[in-house]
Amino acid sequence: VDDSVAPVGPGVAGPAEIVADVVIVGSGCAGTAAAIEAGRAGLETVILERAGGSGGASAMSGGSLYLGGGTALQTACGVEDTPEEMFRFVMAVTSPGADEAKIDVYCRQSVEHFDWVVGCGVPFKASLYTGTFPEPLTDDGLMFTGGENAWPYAEQIRAAPRGHVPEAHDKRPLGHTSGVILMRHLIATAEGLSGRWMLDTQARRLVRESDGRVTGVVARSEGSEIHVRARRGVVLAGGGFVFNDDMLRHHAPRLLGKPKLGTDGDDGRCIRMAQAAGAGVRHMEAAEAAYGLPELYLGGILVNSVGQRFINEDTYFGRIGQAVMFSQDGRAYAIIDDAVNESLSDIGRFYPAGWVGADADELGQAMGLPDGVLRATVEYYNRHAAEGRDPLFHKGRRWLRPLEAPLGAIELADGAFMAFTLGGLHTDVHARVLDVGGEPIPGLYAAGRTTSGVPGWGYCSGMSLGDGTFFGRQAGRHLAKAGAGSSLNP
Amino acid sequence: VDDSVAPVGPGVAGPAEIVADVVIVGSGCAGTAAAIEAGRAGLETVILERAGGSGGASAMSGGSLYLGGGTALQTACGVEDTPEEMFRFVMAVTSPGADEAKIDVYCRQSVEHFDWVVGCGVPFKASLYTGTFPEPLTDDGLMFTGGENAWPYAEQIRAAPRGHVPEAHDKRPLGHTSGVILMRHLIATAEGLSGRWMLDTQARRLVRESDGRVTGVVARSEGSEIHVRARRGVVLAGGGFVFNDDMLRHHAPRLLGKPKLGTDGDDGRCIRMAQAAGAGVRHMEAAEAAYGLPELYLGGILVNSVGQRFINEDTYFGRIGQAVMFSQDGRAYAIIDDAVNESLSDIGRFYPAGWVGADADELGQAMGLPDGVLRATVEYYNRHAAEGRDPLFHKGRRWLRPLEAPLGAIELADGAFMAFTLGGLHTDVHARVLDVGGEPIPGLYAAGRTTSGVPGWGYCSGMSLGDGTFFGRQAGRHLAKAGAGSSLNP
Repeated sequence: VDDSVAPVGPGVAGPAEIVADVVIVGSGCAGTAAAIEAGRAGLETVILERAGGSGGASAMSGGSLYLGGGTALQTACGVEDTPEEMFRFVMAVTSPGADEAKIDVYCRQSVEHFDWVVGCGVPFKASLYTGTFPEPLTDDGLMFTGGENAWPYAEQIRAAPRGHVPEAHDKRPLGHTSGVILMRHLIATAEGLSGRWMLDTQARRLVRESDGRVTGVVARSEGSEIHVRARRGVVLAGGGFVFNDDMLRHHAPRLLGKPKLGTDGDDGRCIRMAQAAGAGVRHMEAAEAAYGLPELYLGGILVNSVGQRFINEDTYFGRIGQAVMFSQDGRAYAIIDDAVNESLSDIGRFYPAGWVGADADELGQAMGLPDGVLRATVEYYNRHAAEGRDPLFHKGRRWLRPLEAPLGAIELADGAFMAFTLGGLHTDVHARVLDVGGEPIPGLYAAGRTTSGVPGWGYCSGMSLGDGTFFGRQAGRHLAKAGAGSSLNP
Repeated sequence: VDDSVAPVGPGVAGPAEIVADVVIVGSGCAGTAAAIEAGRAGLETVILERAGGSGGASAMSGGSLYLGGGTALQTACGVEDTPEEMFRFVMAVTSPGADEAKIDVYCRQSVEHFDWVVGCGVPFKASLYTGTFPEPLTDDGLMFTGGENAWPYAEQIRAAPRGHVPEAHDKRPLGHTSGVILMRHLIATAEGLSGRWMLDTQARRLVRESDGRVTGVVARSEGSEIHVRARRGVVLAGGGFVFNDDMLRHHAPRLLGKPKLGTDGDDGRCIRMAQAAGAGVRHMEAAEAAYGLPELYLGGILVNSVGQRFINEDTYFGRIGQAVMFSQDGRAYAIIDDAVNESLSDIGRFYPAGWVGADADELGQAMGLPDGVLRATVEYYNRHAAEGRDPLFHKGRRWLRPLEAPLGAIELADGAFMAFTLGGLHTDVHARVLDVGGEPIPGLYAAGRTTSGVPGWGYCSGMSLGDGTFFGRQAGRHLAKAGAGSSLNP
């Protein structure tokens, strides 16, 4: 079959047109980090990128890396953090089903990893962002990106901001330029190591020896099929599968039809190529679902399709998005009053109230909610907000203020929503791809959203660039240690 | 590795100790149905069963088959149904991500399939069960098992009971004896066709030719490894994976530590054996989660961990269980009054109220709920129940009655909860196992909870025995059509 992802033997692949020590599929943050570490160890690398330019979804992203444990940037901002507290928090937000071994090494080596990123030339300004946007519109370098400072985590674990955002000077609203800054420096570092880059080159199938070892890929490059042979191993770093509707239908059907964050290269081909060679997967239903502009609901309340509150509005906006998508049938509304409305930025004003009412009853009727529920919800919220309390969901005191009629409602619909997949290949701490029996597939590595990484089922902004670069490096380092010709998996 | 599930070549497997046309793994409803159809077509079959007795989880189950479209039993009970309405309902409860092609053939051939079951000697009494237990304690043959007669489906699709329950005369409470009746007759039918049964024989790995065709299994039988060769094909019907904590951690972590429904053979080995040969999977996170005894909450209300209602209490108890497990953090409480308490059967009385209160406020305080929420919930419910309405979740009028103080609360915890997995191998309408590219793997079939079948993500009681027997038959029939030696996948 022409579009098959099944592995082929070296005989079928034919003589190799290109040979390198390490063949990397994808030039986003994970593939580029692997190329840097392999290149620094003196290995020849070749990066295959299906698009016409490098950087992948990483370059389109907000640019933040979820790091901590006391990084240089945290320290410069006066933030206290330890690897142990970071570990406790990441385990809490990614359980059940957390990948404890991977999270452990990620948290323990996070300080060093930040230094490595800085060593690649990525700039960070030592200032803490205190606004309410999901991504700073300023050049601030550090921010909360996971709800550490909100209920329930703030009560259990000392809160520390861990979103490390590269400094960008030309930010426009929603311009995402920190991702470009990050990738520009990582790619420049990799290029300085004289690895080979092949654009417009799509990996199609793995090449596998009869003993199961992966030794290369068959790729389509400018119209013809080529065999790219890897002396040491292949690193799959081609992104997730949010742009593959068949895979969504099989694994994450609630994402069908939702706005997607990524590139059309996020079609899961790397995942399927490895599965066809017996690789295991984890948490294929998991998704980040960034919901709305927090300024729309931080000062008001969020209600579900029957008018009940369901979450503390000051938690991480991705946690709100997951709750809406997976637990509330995909629908939620922000209820606001004039004071909230007047506080909105230009961006918030893009989302005018869909319904207005002289009071909560009138608003609820206009929205088609069940009789009287919205009034009960607002009265309960207001009564306790006046006392500085939120007994239902423990929204932080700074956001508690009784709403005053008239009221308006904004549906947090697709315009303020972006999703991408978190499920993928099962890998170990060295970024080796594991088969369904849990054993490494010789010669095969993966990192980034091609894998189920640090996030598991949960998420904090910056975890994809964070674990993508981290486990991309792990792959490069493990390949450097594995002697050519000897077992890659000692 | 000793426990590897990786396929082996025929050379490694060695000379075959046993040869048959069809090798079937598992003797539950799916494997037995495959044996019957293959046997009736004149094929030699061998069933490998890892346990010391046959029947698997099917024999432990409630015995109901989810069938419809106008079966003989429905007609005898005066129930009107059509394949089209059954299709609309099954699509509705299993979307998004429904397997439309499989559901289509299942609904269109459901009337014939019921006749086939009856033809195997399985008895059904032509009477409709009208009680509130999840499984009839009577010998009634037909019952609602999917919430067809409750909101939202009852308003959209003509409701028909589709749970077809084999007649059993010695039912004790929760004795599940209809499953035994079903399997006794299916197994007797298969045995009458002189297929071979090997108990205490666990399939360990698939045998795969160099061209990818599956031609047998390596099994462990009474302590030694044997090669069981299949002239035509292998049918995997070894159940789901709810008894494999590693797989739960990777795919369905919310089931960890929950009471499980099945046998310890439900360790996902069949799924992993096929994945190791490149098979695709679907909806691995999906689970049936039968929650509680409906009599505990039908007459009262269900509330979540903050005291809000979240569902119509008269819907299918499995839908309630899924809502609790996946959307409400695993916690829910039935709020009842003296009238409900006095109506409980002996079984209901096993679950005495965990908390009591002179009124809703006192009860809520005793339960540790946020101030005043339970009072607001009960007042809202009572006010509308007195008018015969449930504007929030549309519970049916017959169950609506204002609750009268004093009140009690029962946590719907593990004692009244059972889960099993619904995710598994991707198969087509002929029960052929598909690889990750969507192409059939030659010689490999699967049915029952080893596959993602009719349920997809949703569920109705009886869908596992229903699609297990149906697609087990499809496998047997497709194998019968495939000529020996010719391509099995024309």
